[in-house]
Amino acid sequence: MDVPERVTVKEVGPRDGLQNTAGTVPTATKIAWINQLGKTGVSYIEITAFVHPKWLPALSDGAEVACRIQREPGVTYAALVPNVTGLARALEANVDEVAVFMSASETHNRKNINKSLKETYPVLDEVIRTAAATGKKVRGYVSTVFGCPYEGEISVERVKAVTDRLLTMGVYEVSLGDTIGIADPRQTNEVLTELTRDFSTEQLALHFHDTRGMALANTIVGLTHGITTFDSAAGGLGGCPYAKGATGNVATEDLLYMLEKMGVSTGIDFSRFIEAAAYIDDIVQQPLPSRQLSMYFREQEEKRQGRS
Amino acid sequence: MDVPERVTVKEVGPRDGLQNTAGTVPTATKIAWINQLGKTGVSYIEITAFVHPKWLPALSDGAEVACRIQREPGVTYAALVPNVTGLARALEANVDEVAVFMSASETHNRKNINKSLKETYPVLDEVIRTAAATGKKVRGYVSTVFGCPYEGEISVERVKAVTDRLLTMGVYEVSLGDTIGIADPRQTNEVLTELTRDFSTEQLALHFHDTRGMALANTIVGLTHGITTFDSAAGGLGGCPYAKGATGNVATEDLLYMLEKMGVSTGIDFSRFIEAAAYIDDIVQQPLPSRQLSMYFREQEEKRQGRS
Repeated sequence: MDVPERVTVKEVGPRDGLQNTAGTVPTATKIAWINQLGKTGVSYIEITAFVHPKWLPALSDGAEVACRIQREPGVTYAALVPNVTGLARALEANVDEVAVFMSASETHNRKNINKSLKETYPVLDEVIRTAAATGKKVRGYVSTVFGCPYEGEISVERVKAVTDRLLTMGVYEVSLGDTIGIADPRQTNEVLTELTRDFSTEQLALHFHDTRGMALANTIVGLTHGITTFDSAAGGLGGCPYAKGATGNVATEDLLYMLEKMGVSTGIDFSRFIEAAAYIDDIVQQPLPSRQLSMYFREQEEKRQGRS
Repeated sequence: MDVPERVTVKEVGPRDGLQNTAGTVPTATKIAWINQLGKTGVSYIEITAFVHPKWLPALSDGAEVACRIQREPGVTYAALVPNVTGLARALEANVDEVAVFMSASETHNRKNINKSLKETYPVLDEVIRTAAATGKKVRGYVSTVFGCPYEGEISVERVKAVTDRLLTMGVYEVSLGDTIGIADPRQTNEVLTELTRDFSTEQLALHFHDTRGMALANTIVGLTHGITTFDSAAGGLGGCPYAKGATGNVATEDLLYMLEKMGVSTGIDFSRFIEAAAYIDDIVQQPLPSRQLSMYFREQEEKRQGRS
């Protein structure tokens, strides 16, 4: 099986995972959690978003989070920004890099950021140019790549066009988002076959939600295409407030387990990571979909009961 | 993506799924459920096991179940049997075919059926010959193919030897069981690369448990090797009483969704099937791991609340 020897797993839990929790996670807890994540060997953490609090109240403490976390060497602490106002706040909070986002679907883009695709490009272009002027790298997200809750299927040509535009404007990487967790392995194969014709595998990342349980299957397809960057969230936290039926990101620890067992190294310490996932599970007080976390809690329970 | 156009999904929920429920599912409920499953378009249901009630008390009503269900045309109603005593009971209950089982692991085999591998062969041989004499087909299960809770890794040579022996004795198909849900896609690829050298894809089936969330990823690998038979259980029910950490089979509805979305036909009506899965979820009163079932219940809840 021809897959990369090493991949980068980008932890998006503190942003994508917590953005829908309606402010119930205290700032100090987020900071403690990010500090714990930073000690797992992970090389990239998306710690928050600098979006107007009206849209993402749960992340309105982004500046405090960014300023108070312990920065570990070798870890990139990134934040999502929608425009130059957000970028300014992110820069003030001294994040290492930023991520911009838009949708491959006209309707989802309008619902999510209240702009047409055409109107979005100059906004992101300004962010990318301003960030570059201060020496910050910019990552790009394209959402609803594999399907839109409003428009249904999205053509690969559309995805290609948005990806091309973002890369041309200067993002170093485009993360292809399966916002509603609808991608199947055949479709993932088709999309990647097309995109890797025009773009290098280093320019592409995959961002799967596990709504229908297909995230790891799609990851395998991504690996066989040579993709080396995968987004995930501890515990399988996550969702999108403007996409009905969009549940959690693929759980980082489920992804890590599969990769490491296949001999694909990630640089992340599994046992430290599962403890960080357990920490946030305990905080959010909702059953998280992670399989490894379920096993971990079952083992802990058995140890407690002395049955192990 | 080169995968078969059509596959057979064998529903093992009434046996593998319910064998650990300690007798809490009433016989009439099992019958009603199997009747419902039989109307979904599924072509094979493993309805029970004829094992001594001491070992599987939850399935001690096998004869009553087999005799009282409505038999749908085109559906094979099968039962698991450990020996000729079980076979005799299965034949008396007029099942369409039987399945025999053994482990690729010496230790697991001993724990599960109290015999060495060598001692097991003549017992199964007698079952296969007796069944053949009455015109019944026999399926073979090999468990712990991808790892054993006692012995760890199992060599492909061992799996090959057991598979070969079972096929030589006369089973029409060997179902390769990932009893503890530990198989990863690279390993699945390695095992299938080896096995398809000696056996035809028609002689092999895959039986994944989804303990670590890798079942659908492994299924993709199986499909690319041309395997066309996959075992699963409605709702993701299941487990093995003699293998610690062995949780549910891959959920049939999650498998069906992925296959149908990829254009691989199964002959099973998804919406009828999800209702059958919802029925048993309601009965077993424990949260089942199926993603499609979670979505179904969320949609039902939204409809009830008039928010949809």
